[in-house]
Amino acid sequence: MTTFDETILDNLEIELPSWAFGNSGTRFKVFGTPGTPRTIHEKIADAAKVNELTGLAPSVALHIPWDTVDDYRVLGSYAADLGVRLGTINSNTFQDDDYKFGSLTHTDKTVRQKAIDHHLACIDVMGQTGSRDLKIWLADGTNYPGQGDIRGRQDRLAESLATIYQHIGDDQRLVLEYKFFEPATYVTDVPDWGTSYAHASALGERAMVCLDTGHHAPGTNIEFIVAQLLRLGKLGSFDFNSRFYADDDLIVGAADPFQLFRILFEVVRGGGLDTGSPVALMLDQCHNVEEKIPGQIRSVLNVQEMTARALLVDTDALTAAQEAGDVLGANAIMMDAFYTDVRPMLAQRRESRGLPADPMAAFATSGYAERIADERVGGTQSSWGA
Amino acid sequence: MTTFDETILDNLEIELPSWAFGNSGTRFKVFGTPGTPRTIHEKIADAAKVNELTGLAPSVALHIPWDTVDDYRVLGSYAADLGVRLGTINSNTFQDDDYKFGSLTHTDKTVRQKAIDHHLACIDVMGQTGSRDLKIWLADGTNYPGQGDIRGRQDRLAESLATIYQHIGDDQRLVLEYKFFEPATYVTDVPDWGTSYAHASALGERAMVCLDTGHHAPGTNIEFIVAQLLRLGKLGSFDFNSRFYADDDLIVGAADPFQLFRILFEVVRGGGLDTGSPVALMLDQCHNVEEKIPGQIRSVLNVQEMTARALLVDTDALTAAQEAGDVLGANAIMMDAFYTDVRPMLAQRRESRGLPADPMAAFATSGYAERIADERVGGTQSSWGA
Amino acid sequence: MTTFDETILDNLEIELPSWAFGNSGTRFKVFGTPGTPRTIHEKIADAAKVNELTGLAPSVALHIPWDTVDDYRVLGSYAADLGVRLGTINSNTFQDDDYKFGSLTHTDKTVRQKAIDHHLACIDVMGQTGSRDLKIWLADGTNYPGQGDIRGRQDRLAESLATIYQHIGDDQRLVLEYKFFEPATYVTDVPDWGTSYAHASALGERAMVCLDTGHHAPGTNIEFIVAQLLRLGKLGSFDFNSRFYADDDLIVGAADPFQLFRILFEVVRGGGLDTGSPVALMLDQCHNVEEKIPGQIRSVLNVQEMTARALLVDTDALTAAQEAGDVLGANAIMMDAFYTDVRPMLAQRRESRGLPADPMAAFATSGYAERIADERVGGTQSSWGA
Amino acid sequence: MTTFDETILDNLEIELPSWAFGNSGTRFKVFGTPGTPRTIHEKIADAAKVNELTGLAPSVALHIPWDTVDDYRVLGSYAADLGVRLGTINSNTFQDDDYKFGSLTHTDKTVRQKAIDHHLACIDVMGQTGSRDLKIWLADGTNYPGQGDIRGRQDRLAESLATIYQHIGDDQRLVLEYKFFEPATYVTDVPDWGTSYAHASALGERAMVCLDTGHHAPGTNIEFIVAQLLRLGKLGSFDFNSRFYADDDLIVGAADPFQLFRILFEVVRGGGLDTGSPVALMLDQCHNVEEKIPGQIRSVLNVQEMTARALLVDTDALTAAQEAGDVLGANAIMMDAFYTDVRPMLAQRRESRGLPADPMAAFATSGYAERIADERVGGTQSSWGA
Repeated sequence: MTTFDETILDNLEIELPSWAFGNSGTRFKVFGTPGTPRTIHEKIADAAKVNELTGLAPSVALHIPWDTVDDYRVLGSYAADLGVRLGTINSNTFQDDDYKFGSLTHTDKTVRQKAIDHHLACIDVMGQTGSRDLKIWLADGTNYPGQGDIRGRQDRLAESLATIYQHIGDDQRLVLEYKFFEPATYVTDVPDWGTSYAHASALGERAMVCLDTGHHAPGTNIEFIVAQLLRLGKLGSFDFNSRFYADDDLIVGAADPFQLFRILFEVVRGGGLDTGSPVALMLDQCHNVEEKIPGQIRSVLNVQEMTARALLVDTDALTAAQEAGDVLGANAIMMDAFYTDVRPMLAQRRESRGLPADPMAAFATSGYAERIADERVGGTQSSWGA
Repeated sequence: MTTFDETILDNLEIELPSWAFGNSGTRFKVFGTPGTPRTIHEKIADAAKVNELTGLAPSVALHIPWDTVDDYRVLGSYAADLGVRLGTINSNTFQDDDYKFGSLTHTDKTVRQKAIDHHLACIDVMGQTGSRDLKIWLADGTNYPGQGDIRGRQDRLAESLATIYQHIGDDQRLVLEYKFFEPATYVTDVPDWGTSYAHASALGERAMVCLDTGHHAPGTNIEFIVAQLLRLGKLGSFDFNSRFYADDDLIVGAADPFQLFRILFEVVRGGGLDTGSPVALMLDQCHNVEEKIPGQIRSVLNVQEMTARALLVDTDALTAAQEAGDVLGANAIMMDAFYTDVRPMLAQRRESRGLPADPMAAFATSGYAERIADERVGGTQSSWGA
Repeated sequence: MTTFDETILDNLEIELPSWAFGNSGTRFKVFGTPGTPRTIHEKIADAAKVNELTGLAPSVALHIPWDTVDDYRVLGSYAADLGVRLGTINSNTFQDDDYKFGSLTHTDKTVRQKAIDHHLACIDVMGQTGSRDLKIWLADGTNYPGQGDIRGRQDRLAESLATIYQHIGDDQRLVLEYKFFEPATYVTDVPDWGTSYAHASALGERAMVCLDTGHHAPGTNIEFIVAQLLRLGKLGSFDFNSRFYADDDLIVGAADPFQLFRILFEVVRGGGLDTGSPVALMLDQCHNVEEKIPGQIRSVLNVQEMTARALLVDTDALTAAQEAGDVLGANAIMMDAFYTDVRPMLAQRRESRGLPADPMAAFATSGYAERIADERVGGTQSSWGA
Repeated sequence: MTTFDETILDNLEIELPSWAFGNSGTRFKVFGTPGTPRTIHEKIADAAKVNELTGLAPSVALHIPWDTVDDYRVLGSYAADLGVRLGTINSNTFQDDDYKFGSLTHTDKTVRQKAIDHHLACIDVMGQTGSRDLKIWLADGTNYPGQGDIRGRQDRLAESLATIYQHIGDDQRLVLEYKFFEPATYVTDVPDWGTSYAHASALGERAMVCLDTGHHAPGTNIEFIVAQLLRLGKLGSFDFNSRFYADDDLIVGAADPFQLFRILFEVVRGGGLDTGSPVALMLDQCHNVEEKIPGQIRSVLNVQEMTARALLVDTDALTAAQEAGDVLGANAIMMDAFYTDVRPMLAQRRESRGLPADPMAAFATSGYAERIADERVGGTQSSWGA
């Protein structure tokens, strides 16, 4: 097997979203499961378990207000005791009745200010948690032609973002996520990378784009966007997941593993995994029918495995084939790396670092699932709504 | 203005879904509104109001168990007093924990039998309500490759449907709806018209296909499917709505009015609105951010207006242009009908039948919305979940 | 009928593409027709006929090298004599064997320079024709993963464009078109508005984006992009056409007239039809099976009719409804304008300006089609390849 | 490594299309290459080379009239001498001016009869070549709403097919291919598997469906259709290729290898590779920018490799996981097979059968490409048009 730069694999850190451990579902039904966390503390414990078994997930993203606590420093200590740290702060302006017709884009200045204030409160939390990134995903949009003024909504969005950005600290970043559609069904106010990029550019250096791998139109070449944003210096973070249809929020790499390979190849190509890279990797998934903790373990392993495959690409040979117009030769170099079974090598790598060779099996036999099912009785299981 | 067959406009009846009057939303948020019905009686009252103002919606579809009552004959009388009748019975096998991995397709015979029994109970209801149609929309499917055996699920589905079909009365029908995706994200067990048609054909003459206008892959030519199913004698009913992206469940005709025109042209072309036609027209929509009763009024008016436009097509001239290979001429005949403003004619038609010329305005000034907002206080507003 | 600003209708000018009058087709077959032009002069004559009958199409875009002549000033005089002028110059780097693996993005500096030189030659033509715009649509891209270096191709593209831009005169513009896919099947080097915008922004003030209405992913909200580019000051021009699936190049407004309405509403909303607006309107269509000259007449009429409908929107009432959260009311205001039959008013307007009330009928009875079929015998009919 | 049924790998035969060795391209440009065949004899020689190096491609499909010869028995002997046989006969009703508005669906009985006669001539060829399958792919369709009568076209299609079917011999089959769109841009007369299935069912037992893996709407679950058609006993053949956007005709497995794996898993699951299976495997690809012979070698190897992976799935364990509702476990069983590197095993298998371990390398060093480039000078290179 070709060898590759171990540094990049060493650098690999994938942030886990606290909400992945809570219940989620579709508009038709949310299924609950035994052991689902009731509190942010229990979510962090589950996330820490993922990190303990994989060594890949040293931080946990919070969602405000779902994960609101009185004292974030205490929460940070709790996390640290479990071997993880608090990461990105995600705002939420889509579950309050006031936001029915928009938040940062609303025609009513009062509602806009409320949404701005929520983000300022999130920045306060960041100060306490030591988080670098404020991630903004907006559900803002409209369902029917005429419902909103497309242009006016953009102008108000720009103004609201500018106000928030003024409060972003020197070591902090505002990361703006885009999404093709849902929940809005006609206009989404930040629907594509171009919009996110235009706003981030207007805001300044500490504003970046978040690329969620499930948030594109059918057929979109996502690795192209990755390469472009890296080139433009505006790729701030990934929300990893996968999809067959809409924003399915499936386990990253589950729907199209070759696409994940191509994406990670461009990340590596663009320096996105180099030491000091501005690119943060995060999961954003829903485990509607599968077990949640193993779902997260599987996900970070998928990213690691595909990164290893991407690193196996013989880039010198690839460049030579590209310059020679050898289409099949160049393609074969990519495929050769993709089809290489890196799992044994990674298992060995894990063991050499004191981690279980097979984290999935290790979790299954750990008794953790059974224990939390027994212990977490009563209370209200966490879900998107709480 | 060209004249057309008034009979077809006279025949036009569009069934309203009881659930359109309840709250609905996305996986992110369900917004409530004052006046939302708490009971099936209140839903029927709202539906009756739509019919009163439009003369187009003389029946109401029920959803079991959402609309379960002790005595359906009493409910029928209640409806009749309000000028409407009870229509299609819709089953529900997607909100019980047992159905997490399927209902009629489940590997566990006990679960399949439970789902079959639910449909038999629905047929019992039909006996009491005098409904003709049992409509089956299944949420059955899988989220991940390997999760289910695609072929085995089809075989079990066929067997379950056959058992249900044996209980369908001589004057009753089983109507099988298909949907491209959602809530399942990898395999949907009845994903396309071909599957619905293959099952309905295997079942027998009283099994038909339900075409929901929002349940297709991007770019699908829906009017082609309409024409094909009419030709094959298997178009049982429509679920009308519209969409920009996924199953948006918007007001029919809102997203692509020209598509609705083309669909209704094929319905007329295929005899689907002739006296005695087997094709039932129904709405299936969600009014997540707009008012619900006006949303239903707007919807039935859209169907009526577009039917009128479809009837305006000069079919003799069209045939002549088609046979002459006159592409632009043929297209112009279609467009001429589409661009004709039929609204004044329909307003006049309404008035001549003792209906308000402008049903939307009539509702707005009727005080009905204010009255139900005042009266319907307390209790639990109906929604998809109850 | 609501009245509206006549100035905007007066301002309406839609450039015709010379190649629309030549033969075109699919990879399967190109059908020829009697009367198809053999020369740029005959194409201009046909275009002039469209303008004569509609008053809407005073300029003709040229495609280099398809429309190459020895003396463009003479050609300009010829056009002027027919009542039209020469417009946008379109480059072509997709039909030379050297460009098999790219033009402005090619790894081989020699090929890149050849492609650059072609654009400089186009700028020379612009000097002779008095054209303002150099429009660049690139077929550059790759078919297989690995075939090209996505990032490297962007870097080379940026460099090539910068070189070309240096030669753009003070009163000239470089307009960069984007396209989702085709002919490339994996990576297209300018696939979306974001990429075109990023390059145009880097180039400078005289670089703009061209939005072809057929060049987007399925489901894309095009009017959003229109609004966004107008807001960013970078919408240089439209290539109008319509599509059901891919880049079908159908008559504008034929596939989704309501979409064209929404697009033109945003153009008006954003000042794109105001006097002095930088937005150029152009057709880019293929008349594969329909007659070409009537196809162009139909197209410019469609744009005019839909512009008139867009102007009918009661924007004050719309704003009020939007601010009141009246979704159905706002939507109704849009639909009311869309459903208004503006054709009689426009026919009257035409007559008052000495134009035929019905340009389609006028062409049909003009004898022009028969005359060119008789006259244009021998020679090689123009097509995309020549 | 898990062992598996060698018989299925032994059974694997993939038919090559004669036209894959000719030039092809897009509507923008067809690139020629040295060595491209000028005759069907040279195409067969190239196909035989693929079979010689892989042992996987013992037959060649012909396209009439592209591959018309005076004596097909002589051609058959020529092929036999090269170690291959003549296979499926493909008709062509899309390159004659008469078919501009349809062939088997045309309103003009004369044109329909001409198209029917062409198919009868193809059946005559089948008698001479000993071919089993007549494959019909129709370009029939319309570009604009109104251009054709959707329903009438179906009725005429049914009638034409019935006439052709009457001439299909007892040991022959009519295989009807469907395609989502292209070249038609509004209606395609056989757009989906449901239409192909409905016609094949109406025709009789020797009528089957051809599934081209590139002919579906975005997001379509192709393996579902495979499973369904196998269940219905109507899957006659595959046209293998792959796509990112439209009908890209890329090398099978190139765009989404995991999809190919899932498809082949369902083929195996449904008995499609069992001895005596009615399912024929064929390539249908265009090598627009890559070398053609290696392109075909790569393709058959991809099918073989993915079949081997599909055979590795531990179906007993899979069934157990499915019945236990173990979503992640079931998925892992699939992925484990997919991620297994079967290439060394297949190389060894080849060598044990006297084939080169690496057919791509063997071709590269064979001197064949250089030889045909030298020899095939003059004449007209074959392409889709000839």
